[in-house]
Amino acid sequence: MSATSMRQLAEASCATCRTLANASSDTKNAALRDMARALRADAKSILSANEEDLAEAKAAGRSAAFLDRLALTPARIEAMAEAVEAIVALPDPVGEITERWKRPNGLQVSRMRLPLGVLLMIYEARPNVTSDAAALALKSGNAVILRGGREALRSNGAIARALRLGLISSGLPAEAVTLVTDVAHASLGALLELEGLIDLCIPRGGQGLVKFVHEHARIPVVEHAEGVCHVYVHADADPKKAEDIVLNAKTHRPGVCNAAECLLIDSAVAPELLPRLGSALSSKGVTLKACPIALPLLERSGVEAVPAAPDDFGREFLDLTMAVRVVPDLDAALDHIGRFGSEHTEALVSEDRNTQRRFVREVAASAVVVNASTRFNDGGELGLGAEIGISTSRMHAFGPMGLRELTSQKYVIHGTGQVR
Amino acid sequence: MSATSMRQLAEASCATCRTLANASSDTKNAALRDMARALRADAKSILSANEEDLAEAKAAGRSAAFLDRLALTPARIEAMAEAVEAIVALPDPVGEITERWKRPNGLQVSRMRLPLGVLLMIYEARPNVTSDAAALALKSGNAVILRGGREALRSNGAIARALRLGLISSGLPAEAVTLVTDVAHASLGALLELEGLIDLCIPRGGQGLVKFVHEHARIPVVEHAEGVCHVYVHADADPKKAEDIVLNAKTHRPGVCNAAECLLIDSAVAPELLPRLGSALSSKGVTLKACPIALPLLERSGVEAVPAAPDDFGREFLDLTMAVRVVPDLDAALDHIGRFGSEHTEALVSEDRNTQRRFVREVAASAVVVNASTRFNDGGELGLGAEIGISTSRMHAFGPMGLRELTSQKYVIHGTGQVR
Repeated sequence: MSATSMRQLAEASCATCRTLANASSDTKNAALRDMARALRADAKSILSANEEDLAEAKAAGRSAAFLDRLALTPARIEAMAEAVEAIVALPDPVGEITERWKRPNGLQVSRMRLPLGVLLMIYEARPNVTSDAAALALKSGNAVILRGGREALRSNGAIARALRLGLISSGLPAEAVTLVTDVAHASLGALLELEGLIDLCIPRGGQGLVKFVHEHARIPVVEHAEGVCHVYVHADADPKKAEDIVLNAKTHRPGVCNAAECLLIDSAVAPELLPRLGSALSSKGVTLKACPIALPLLERSGVEAVPAAPDDFGREFLDLTMAVRVVPDLDAALDHIGRFGSEHTEALVSEDRNTQRRFVREVAASAVVVNASTRFNDGGELGLGAEIGISTSRMHAFGPMGLRELTSQKYVIHGTGQVR
Repeated sequence: MSATSMRQLAEASCATCRTLANASSDTKNAALRDMARALRADAKSILSANEEDLAEAKAAGRSAAFLDRLALTPARIEAMAEAVEAIVALPDPVGEITERWKRPNGLQVSRMRLPLGVLLMIYEARPNVTSDAAALALKSGNAVILRGGREALRSNGAIARALRLGLISSGLPAEAVTLVTDVAHASLGALLELEGLIDLCIPRGGQGLVKFVHEHARIPVVEHAEGVCHVYVHADADPKKAEDIVLNAKTHRPGVCNAAECLLIDSAVAPELLPRLGSALSSKGVTLKACPIALPLLERSGVEAVPAAPDDFGREFLDLTMAVRVVPDLDAALDHIGRFGSEHTEALVSEDRNTQRRFVREVAASAVVVNASTRFNDGGELGLGAEIGISTSRMHAFGPMGLRELTSQKYVIHGTGQVR
């Protein structure tokens, strides 16, 4: 029965936890280098496994975009190996002392990072997630169970094989990285119920996957909700910055979660600035869905726009479409964001210090951006080195999750015989 | 229907979140002072409500210990008011910048604390939790839904009324602190399903309550499992410290979660030291349940002991009973703790630096204590100022939770027009 085998698999992961938690940085780094080396050495068999996956996906009529996500090339395998090696250079979070203080009775208290335990990574087509997640888990002292999409099963299998060879050659247990080969829904459901064996589930994929995980999980899950991100152009915005930022936030990669979906513009500058922004967006192919105040301002200047439907606010378009609303002031912008935003990424364009301060303080989002593009809410861009996912809930971690977010902290108390 | 009214209640709490999150420290502190004042002013009606609760509990045949937990006195109400005032002096975590760094492209990145949102506090007999939890929630910018035990309903009602008067008089919304008066199991079940409305549930009470919450919750819950805590007396232990610490850890308050349940003693010092420790414990009324090596060592010295059953290891006695095991070395102690400990509090007595380092690094517990009593794993003792609960899982917070643990962190990005 699949529930039993999933439990056994998780128990085997669990059994590696103490070894992984206590592995030195040198051991983990050596393993990462060995894993990268094994990926390169196995490139041929990884590519041929990938070819089989691709053939099947083509025969099943999957889209060109899907096939592109699934496809591996020698260059992509090299990039995977380099990404694993890049983790070597990141500081080891395990054992890090984050704070220390002294109590009046002489006790020395500190907080030290420790791994979470066993991670369950659930993802879809991209095979590189297999090696990325394994490397991040290992460096942060966690075991990982990898559950990729069924379409990438052979590719992921070949990659995981190489990764485990790397682990073994540096003396770490192969079960630290486990690929689930039973990709039935029932087995995923069984994994999601393994309270006490799996410490954190990180789903990375579309809303369907995220919803399934959330509904079935009895284990903690990193929430990854949609990104309904706004750019608020304030009365004191620098027009050039406003144009650059709005354009970039909307058009740089419209299909991702940190792309902007809605432009809020202050009524004081809308008559002058909105036509400029609208025309720039329009020239990049963006469809503007404008509120009743914005619409005539745009049309009067010859910028094409359509009336916004009520549900266009708070909507994640994920394409070249942008809702536009004119707001009277900062408070109205904050109200709009509080009501329609998804707490993912919110940006302000303003030169006014007070407005910046209030926006930063009052907006509840995993990233609050002042005078820069929403697209910077990303682990790499923020300097985390690598990211394993983005959390859109405030529990445990909020925003991009790097190595540190895969750890917890324990209190360490040093005394000289103190009692109560 | 109770599910509908629980949803409405949570929606009303939720509606206060932005106001609370943006309230200044001054406003929150003024409200705390007003709440303390209102508790004192309403002492008479709180006491008479408590008398009714007590009468009912007595008639229902509740234990003396239960009645003592439930009972309020003028002194206890004064202590509640003082506890609320003590929160004024604690630093406001909201808006605190915890880190900042600069990216090569000039972006200034920082992390700023923000409240979690709506807390659900579930507790049993002690009415002082009502004011403690309300004060901690308010200072950390969170709304709180209080769901106390049915036996304390009138007392909690009178306390909550006073607290809300205090809130209103300082201009904050009364719905920031809401007491659930419908204490049916079904209404608790309904609250626990309010995903998206309640951000964190903190159950404080016996294992029955904790288990019910955990089984029914669709919202994040602070795990509070039992405390199976060990003291490991190493070969290089100072005998006097060992005696003081073992005695205190076991007998200071045997019924609490950070009391020790098991003594591990190194075989190198057991023949000499175990009789001394055993006799000290025994003279305090502790029943010793000894492993086959420890038993003759104790008996030979005239210390009474009984053989330990296999399930005495890993057991939370919560009374004057202690399991005793002789272990050959540090590795065996670490194995025992890894297998039988509950990741709550683990203590080492040793003067050897290397042993201390390994114990601190390798033991996974919310608090790892060197040469001090396990009883120091407590928010007050660690200097958190106050604690709302203890988390025994590594997600979000591990160990005692103070004001900071009731917050999350957002990324704040300041740019000068940067785009990708």
